Amino acid sequence: MGNNIKNIKKTNLNIFKVPGGDVLHAIHKADPYLRGFGEVYFSKINAGHIKGWKRHKRMTLNLVVPVGNVLFAFIDSEGSTSHEIIGENNYIKLMVPPLIWFSFKGIDKPYSLIMNFADIPHDPEEVERKDINQINFNWEELK
Amino acid sequence: MGNNIKNIKKTNLNIFKVPGGDVLHAIHKADPYLRGFGEVYFSKINAGHIKGWKRHKRMTLNLVVPVGNVLFAFIDSEGSTSHEIIGENNYIKLMVPPLIWFSFKGIDKPYSLIMNFADIPHDPEEVERKDINQINFNWEELK
Repeated sequence: MGNNIKNIKKTNLNIFKVPGGDVLHAIHKADPYLRGFGEVYFSKINAGHIKGWKRHKRMTLNLVVPVGNVLFAFIDSEGSTSHEIIGENNYIKLMVPPLIWFSFKGIDKPYSLIMNFADIPHDPEEVERKDINQINFNWEELK
Repeated sequence: MGNNIKNIKKTNLNIFKVPGGDVLHAIHKADPYLRGFGEVYFSKINAGHIKGWKRHKRMTLNLVVPVGNVLFAFIDSEGSTSHEIIGENNYIKLMVPPLIWFSFKGIDKPYSLIMNFADIPHDPEEVERKDINQINFNWEELK
Protein backbone atom coordinates (compact mmCIF):
# COMPACT_ATOMS: atom_id res chain seq x y z
CA MET A 1 0.00 0.00 0.00
CA GLY A 2 1.27 3.45 -0.80
CA ASN A 3 1.80 5.88 -3.58
CA ASN A 4 4.77 6.57 -5.80
CA ILE A 5 6.67 9.88 -5.88
CA LYS A 6 6.25 9.70 -9.68
CA ASN A 7 2.61 10.60 -9.10
CA ILE A 8 3.59 14.06 -7.81
CA LYS A 9 2.63 16.42 -10.67
CA LYS A 10 3.90 19.89 -11.59
CA THR A 11 1.84 22.66 -13.20
CA ASN A 12 3.52 25.81 -14.52
CA LEU A 13 1.94 29.01 -13.23
CA ASN A 14 2.10 32.55 -14.57
CA ILE A 15 3.21 35.70 -12.79
CA PHE A 16 1.98 38.97 -14.32
CA LYS A 17 4.09 42.07 -13.75
CA VAL A 18 1.73 44.83 -12.61
CA PRO A 19 2.69 48.33 -11.36
CA GLY A 20 2.17 48.43 -7.61
CA GLY A 21 2.31 44.66 -7.15
CA ASP A 22 2.32 41.53 -9.31
CA VAL A 23 -0.63 39.21 -9.97
CA LEU A 24 0.08 35.49 -9.58
CA HIS A 25 -2.04 32.63 -10.86
CA ALA A 26 -2.54 29.75 -8.45
CA ILE A 27 -5.40 27.26 -9.01
CA HIS A 28 -7.73 27.05 -11.99
CA LYS A 29 -10.72 24.75 -12.15
CA ALA A 30 -9.58 23.52 -15.58
CA ASP A 31 -6.38 22.07 -14.05
CA PRO A 32 -6.51 18.34 -14.94
CA TYR A 33 -4.82 17.37 -11.65
CA LEU A 34 -7.53 18.91 -9.44
CA ARG A 35 -9.64 16.44 -7.50
CA GLY A 36 -12.25 18.75 -6.01
CA PHE A 37 -12.21 21.32 -3.24
CA GLY A 38 -12.35 20.89 0.52
CA GLU A 39 -10.27 23.64 2.11
CA VAL A 40 -7.61 26.25 1.45
CA TYR A 41 -5.12 27.11 4.19
CA PHE A 42 -1.75 28.81 4.49
CA SER A 43 1.44 27.79 6.29
CA LYS A 44 4.22 30.21 7.02
CA ILE A 45 7.70 28.70 7.28
CA ASN A 46 10.56 30.68 8.78
CA ALA A 47 13.93 30.70 7.03
CA GLY A 48 15.97 27.64 8.02
CA HIS A 49 13.09 25.98 9.85
CA ILE A 50 11.93 22.46 8.88
CA LYS A 51 8.37 21.17 9.42
CA GLY A 52 7.42 17.50 9.05
CA TRP A 53 7.27 14.64 8.49
CA LYS A 54 3.63 14.29 7.62
CA ARG A 55 1.61 11.90 5.47
CA HIS A 56 -2.06 12.18 4.52
CA LYS A 57 -4.11 9.03 4.14
CA ARG A 58 -6.77 10.66 1.94
CA MET A 59 -5.93 14.33 1.22
CA THR A 60 -4.44 15.41 -2.09
CA LEU A 61 -2.39 18.60 -1.69
CA ASN A 62 -2.02 21.38 -4.25
CA LEU A 63 0.94 23.46 -3.08
CA VAL A 64 1.75 26.98 -4.28
CA VAL A 65 4.34 29.35 -2.73
CA PRO A 66 3.51 32.99 -3.63
CA VAL A 67 5.97 34.50 -1.10
CA GLY A 68 9.57 33.32 -0.76
CA ASN A 69 10.88 29.88 -1.65
CA VAL A 70 10.41 26.51 0.08
CA LEU A 71 12.26 23.20 -0.24
CA PHE A 72 9.87 20.24 -0.18
CA ALA A 73 11.17 16.73 0.43
CA PHE A 74 9.17 13.61 -0.43
CA ILE A 75 9.55 9.91 0.37
CA ASP A 76 7.20 7.20 -0.81
CA SER A 77 6.46 3.84 0.81
CA GLU A 78 9.14 2.15 -1.32
CA GLY A 79 11.76 4.54 0.04
CA SER A 80 12.17 6.55 -3.17
CA THR A 81 12.92 10.21 -2.52
CA SER A 82 12.57 13.45 -4.42
CA HIS A 83 12.76 17.13 -3.64
CA GLU A 84 11.75 20.40 -5.25
CA ILE A 85 12.27 24.05 -4.39
CA ILE A 86 9.18 26.04 -5.36
CA GLY A 87 8.26 29.68 -4.89
CA GLU A 88 8.97 33.02 -6.47
CA ASN A 89 12.10 31.67 -8.24
CA ASN A 90 10.36 28.54 -9.57
CA TYR A 91 6.68 29.42 -9.63
CA ILE A 92 4.89 26.11 -10.12
CA LYS A 93 2.15 24.14 -8.40
CA LEU A 94 2.87 20.72 -6.92
CA MET A 95 0.05 18.19 -6.74
CA VAL A 96 0.93 15.67 -4.04
CA PRO A 97 -1.34 12.60 -3.82
CA PRO A 98 -2.08 10.84 -0.52
CA LEU A 99 0.29 8.35 1.14
CA ILE A 100 3.54 10.20 0.39
CA TRP A 101 5.64 11.43 3.32
CA PHE A 102 6.63 15.07 3.03
CA SER A 103 8.60 17.67 4.92
CA PHE A 104 9.54 21.23 4.05
CA LYS A 105 12.15 23.86 4.85
CA GLY A 106 11.90 27.66 4.59
CA ILE A 107 14.58 29.19 2.34
CA ASP A 108 13.83 32.93 2.29
CA LYS A 109 13.97 35.47 5.14
CA PRO A 110 12.00 36.22 7.18
CA TYR A 111 9.51 33.57 6.05
CA SER A 112 7.88 31.99 3.01
CA LEU A 113 4.16 31.42 2.54
CA ILE A 114 2.68 28.13 1.34
CA MET A 115 -0.91 27.80 0.15
CA ASN A 116 -2.45 24.35 0.20
CA PHE A 117 -5.59 23.91 -1.90
CA ALA A 118 -6.80 20.56 -0.54
CA ASP A 119 -9.46 18.25 -1.94
CA ILE A 120 -10.92 17.50 1.52
CA PRO A 121 -11.22 19.63 4.66
CA HIS A 122 -8.63 19.20 7.41
CA ASP A 123 -9.25 16.02 9.43
CA PRO A 124 -6.68 15.07 12.10
CA GLU A 125 -7.73 11.42 11.76
CA GLU A 126 -6.24 11.14 8.30
CA VAL A 127 -2.82 12.67 9.12
CA GLU A 128 0.20 10.61 10.19
CA ARG A 129 3.27 12.29 11.65
CA LYS A 130 6.91 11.41 12.33
CA ASP A 131 9.62 13.46 13.97
CA ILE A 132 12.08 15.03 11.57
CA ASN A 133 14.81 12.57 12.61
CA GLN A 134 12.65 9.47 12.12
CA ILE A 135 13.15 9.62 8.36
CA ASN A 136 16.64 9.88 6.98
CA PHE A 137 16.92 12.77 4.53
CA ASN A 138 20.07 14.65 3.72
CA TRP A 139 18.93 18.26 4.14
CA GLU A 140 22.48 19.58 4.25
CA GLU A 141 23.36 18.15 0.85
CA LEU A 142 20.49 20.09 -0.72
CA LYS A 143 21.79 23.48 0.37
CA MET B 1 -29.26 47.38 -11.54
CA GLY B 2 -26.56 46.77 -8.97
CA ASN B 3 -25.80 45.30 -5.65
CA ASN B 4 -25.73 46.77 -2.17
CA ILE B 5 -22.60 47.08 -0.01
CA LYS B 6 -24.69 45.46 2.75
CA ASN B 7 -24.31 42.21 0.82
CA ILE B 8 -20.56 42.17 1.51
CA LYS B 9 -20.13 39.45 4.15
CA LYS B 10 -17.39 38.85 6.73
CA THR B 11 -16.20 35.48 7.98
CA ASN B 12 -13.85 35.22 10.97
CA LEU B 13 -10.77 33.10 10.30
CA ASN B 14 -8.37 31.39 12.70
CA ILE B 15 -4.61 31.77 12.95
CA PHE B 16 -2.80 28.92 14.73
CA LYS B 17 0.50 29.73 16.37
CA VAL B 18 2.98 27.05 15.32
CA PRO B 19 6.75 26.94 16.02
CA GLY B 20 8.58 27.81 12.81
CA GLY B 21 5.61 29.54 11.17
CA ASP B 22 1.90 29.99 11.79
CA VAL B 23 -0.94 28.13 10.06
CA LEU B 24 -3.80 30.33 8.78
CA HIS B 25 -7.23 29.15 7.77
CA ALA B 26 -8.62 30.68 4.56
CA ILE B 27 -11.53 29.01 2.74
CA HIS B 28 -13.60 26.04 3.90
CA LYS B 29 -16.17 24.31 1.74
CA ALA B 30 -18.68 24.55 4.61
CA ASP B 31 -18.59 28.40 4.42
CA PRO B 32 -22.23 29.40 3.78
CA TYR B 33 -21.15 32.37 1.62
CA LEU B 34 -19.24 30.25 -0.91
CA ARG B 35 -20.77 30.09 -4.38
CA GLY B 36 -18.55 27.48 -6.01
CA PHE B 37 -15.00 27.51 -7.30
CA GLY B 38 -13.56 28.89 -10.53
CA GLU B 39 -10.05 30.17 -9.81
CA VAL B 40 -7.65 31.20 -7.05
CA TYR B 41 -5.15 33.97 -7.70
CA PHE B 42 -2.93 36.30 -5.70
CA SER B 43 -2.34 40.04 -5.93
CA LYS B 44 0.60 41.74 -4.29
CA ILE B 45 0.07 45.37 -3.33
CA ASN B 46 3.00 47.57 -2.43
CA ALA B 47 2.79 49.85 0.64
CA GLY B 48 1.03 53.11 -0.25
CA HIS B 49 -0.01 51.93 -3.72
CA ILE B 50 -3.69 51.94 -4.74
CA LYS B 51 -5.18 49.61 -7.37
CA GLY B 52 -8.66 50.11 -8.82
CA TRP B 53 -11.39 50.83 -9.47
CA LYS B 54 -12.78 47.56 -10.69
CA ARG B 55 -16.23 45.99 -10.83
CA HIS B 56 -17.12 42.43 -11.76
CA LYS B 57 -20.38 41.76 -13.57
CA ARG B 58 -20.55 38.09 -12.55
CA MET B 59 -17.64 37.15 -10.27
CA THR B 60 -18.07 36.84 -6.51
CA LEU B 61 -14.77 37.49 -4.69
CA ASN B 62 -13.59 35.84 -1.49
CA LEU B 63 -10.71 37.97 -0.23
CA VAL B 64 -8.15 36.89 2.36
CA VAL B 65 -4.91 38.73 3.23
CA PRO B 66 -2.39 36.32 4.83
CA VAL B 67 0.59 38.72 4.56
CA GLY B 68 0.42 42.37 5.64
CA ASN B 69 -2.73 44.48 5.75
CA VAL B 70 -4.84 46.00 2.97
CA LEU B 71 -7.48 48.73 2.94
CA PHE B 72 -10.41 47.85 0.69
CA ALA B 73 -12.87 50.54 -0.41
CA PHE B 74 -16.31 49.72 -1.80
CA ILE B 75 -18.99 51.74 -3.58
CA ASP B 76 -22.31 50.36 -4.74
CA SER B 77 -24.51 51.60 -7.58
CA GLU B 78 -26.50 53.78 -5.18
CA GLY B 79 -23.32 55.58 -4.13
CA SER B 80 -23.11 54.03 -0.66
CA THR B 81 -19.53 53.48 0.47
CA SER B 82 -17.78 51.27 2.97
CA HIS B 83 -14.22 50.29 3.74
CA GLU B 84 -12.41 47.61 5.69
CA ILE B 85 -8.79 46.94 6.56
CA ILE B 86 -8.14 43.20 6.53
CA GLY B 87 -4.96 41.19 7.00
CA GLU B 88 -2.76 39.93 9.77
CA ASN B 89 -4.21 42.49 12.24
CA ASN B 90 -7.84 41.75 11.34
CA TYR B 91 -7.79 38.26 9.92
CA ILE B 92 -11.18 37.83 8.26
CA LYS B 93 -12.51 36.87 4.85
CA LEU B 94 -14.57 39.32 2.80
CA MET B 95 -17.15 37.94 0.38
CA VAL B 96 -17.83 40.61 -2.23
CA PRO B 97 -20.75 39.94 -4.60
CA PRO B 98 -20.76 41.14 -8.23
CA LEU B 99 -21.64 44.72 -9.27
CA ILE B 100 -19.84 46.51 -6.43
CA TRP B 101 -16.97 48.87 -7.31
CA PHE B 102 -13.83 48.19 -5.28
CA SER B 103 -10.34 49.54 -4.91
CA PHE B 104 -7.54 48.68 -2.50
CA LYS B 105 -4.44 50.17 -0.94
CA GLY B 106 -1.39 48.41 0.51
CA ILE B 107 -0.68 49.31 4.14
CA ASP B 108 2.35 47.21 5.14
CA LYS B 109 5.92 47.35 3.83
CA PRO B 110 7.21 46.10 1.52
CA TYR B 111 3.95 44.60 0.25
CA SER B 112 0.81 42.76 1.33
CA LEU B 113 -0.59 39.63 -0.32
CA ILE B 114 -4.25 39.22 -1.24
CA MET B 115 -5.76 35.87 -2.17
CA ASN B 116 -8.97 35.89 -4.20
CA PHE B 117 -10.93 32.64 -4.21
CA ALA B 118 -13.34 33.39 -7.07
CA ASP B 119 -16.48 31.49 -8.07
CA ILE B 120 -15.69 31.77 -11.81
CA PRO B 121 -12.39 31.80 -13.73
CA HIS B 122 -10.94 35.15 -14.80
CA ASP B 123 -12.77 36.57 -17.83
CA PRO B 124 -11.80 40.07 -19.04
CA GLU B 125 -15.28 40.45 -20.58
CA GLU B 126 -16.94 40.60 -17.18
CA VAL B 127 -14.59 43.22 -15.62
CA GLU B 128 -15.28 46.96 -15.72
CA ARG B 129 -12.57 49.45 -14.81
CA LYS B 130 -12.31 53.11 -13.86
CA ASP B 131 -9.27 55.23 -13.13
CA ILE B 132 -8.67 55.88 -9.45
CA ASN B 133 -9.77 59.53 -9.81
CA GLN B 134 -13.05 58.70 -11.58
CA ILE B 135 -14.67 57.75 -8.29
CA ASN B 136 -14.48 60.13 -5.38
CA PHE B 137 -13.18 58.40 -2.29
CA ASN B 138 -11.40 60.08 0.57
CA TRP B 139 -8.33 57.88 0.96
CA GLU B 140 -6.49 60.45 3.08
CA GLU B 141 -9.19 60.51 5.73
CA LEU B 142 -8.82 56.77 6.23
CA LYS B 143 -5.16 56.91 7.22
